[in-house]
Amino acid sequence: MAKTKKEYPLNQVHRLLQSGPVVLVTTSNKGKANIMAMSWYTVIDSDPPKLAIVISSDNYSFKALRSTKECVINIPTVKLASKSVSCGRSSGKEVDKFKTYGLTALPASKVKAPLIGECYANVECKVIDMKMVEKYDLFILEVVKVWIDPVKRPQKTIHHLGGDKFMVAGNVIRV
Amino acid sequence: MAKTKKEYPLNQVHRLLQSGPVVLVTTSNKGKANIMAMSWYTVIDSDPPKLAIVISSDNYSFKALRSTKECVINIPTVKLASKSVSCGRSSGKEVDKFKTYGLTALPASKVKAPLIGECYANVECKVIDMKMVEKYDLFILEVVKVWIDPVKRPQKTIHHLGGDKFMVAGNVIRV
Repeated sequence: MAKTKKEYPLNQVHRLLQSGPVVLVTTSNKGKANIMAMSWYTVIDSDPPKLAIVISSDNYSFKALRSTKECVINIPTVKLASKSVSCGRSSGKEVDKFKTYGLTALPASKVKAPLIGECYANVECKVIDMKMVEKYDLFILEVVKVWIDPVKRPQKTIHHLGGDKFMVAGNVIRV
Repeated sequence: MAKTKKEYPLNQVHRLLQSGPVVLVTTSNKGKANIMAMSWYTVIDSDPPKLAIVISSDNYSFKALRSTKECVINIPTVKLASKSVSCGRSSGKEVDKFKTYGLTALPASKVKAPLIGECYANVECKVIDMKMVEKYDLFILEVVKVWIDPVKRPQKTIHHLGGDKFMVAGNVIRV
């Protein structure tokens, strides 16, 4: 459990994810933790919260997620843009991403995959349905615990536009 | 087909959608067109492009999508924020949203659902898999045609943070 983070209500986690921020997915397989960057996911239910995420079978994290059925979805802000891209451009097959990019692995509370301490929110998840994995690399997850930094929102999340271009979260409006 | 719009490459459509903009989904069932606002979707493949979208069975559009297996995913910008929210807060069961909110229905090229003329991009889709509909209200779509306004990107898309709060797309950075 992360001492510097506070718990965030499970049934509000869609508010952190439905705007489409780049996320960093952590797994832990046979004691080896890894990180991948990702934008292809969606909330599919809010209470209890469920997500659908796509992790290609080409990714090193695919095997870890499929075997352990656990991951953490960590949400970085623009301060971590460069490290997030580095995580996306390298493979856990070759590098220890926590060590190489100077990121802190904190213990999660309900899964073995670690939280990334530098990310402002961390969403602990368990895989509950793998029926769409073979055909679409699509995993259905249930969110089991959410942590957030005790700071004011909104956060400057980053949103992938393709290639090396990212949109940084702009002004908040009420409509 | 929309005369003021130009075609956009199918295998680049993930660049329009993966940053998580609010979208307006149009359907046409028995000659009746409808619009719903939505944030719960993700790209699941880029070439050929496929999407996973969640439309609750409580929504009026659910039945139209399930029967016709066709829709258009229209991407509004902040100029349409108020109309987009109005589409989200009303039901096609009670109102003709095109008429009520002054939106223009343009004919699509490969599906019967209309394009919303005022949206800067329009993604024509066909449902290709309904195996996850009963359990999760999750439809798998294939993108069959994409239209875009011939103007410079990036666009000021809106991203739902929950309730009445939306983040407006901010600066673009290269990382």
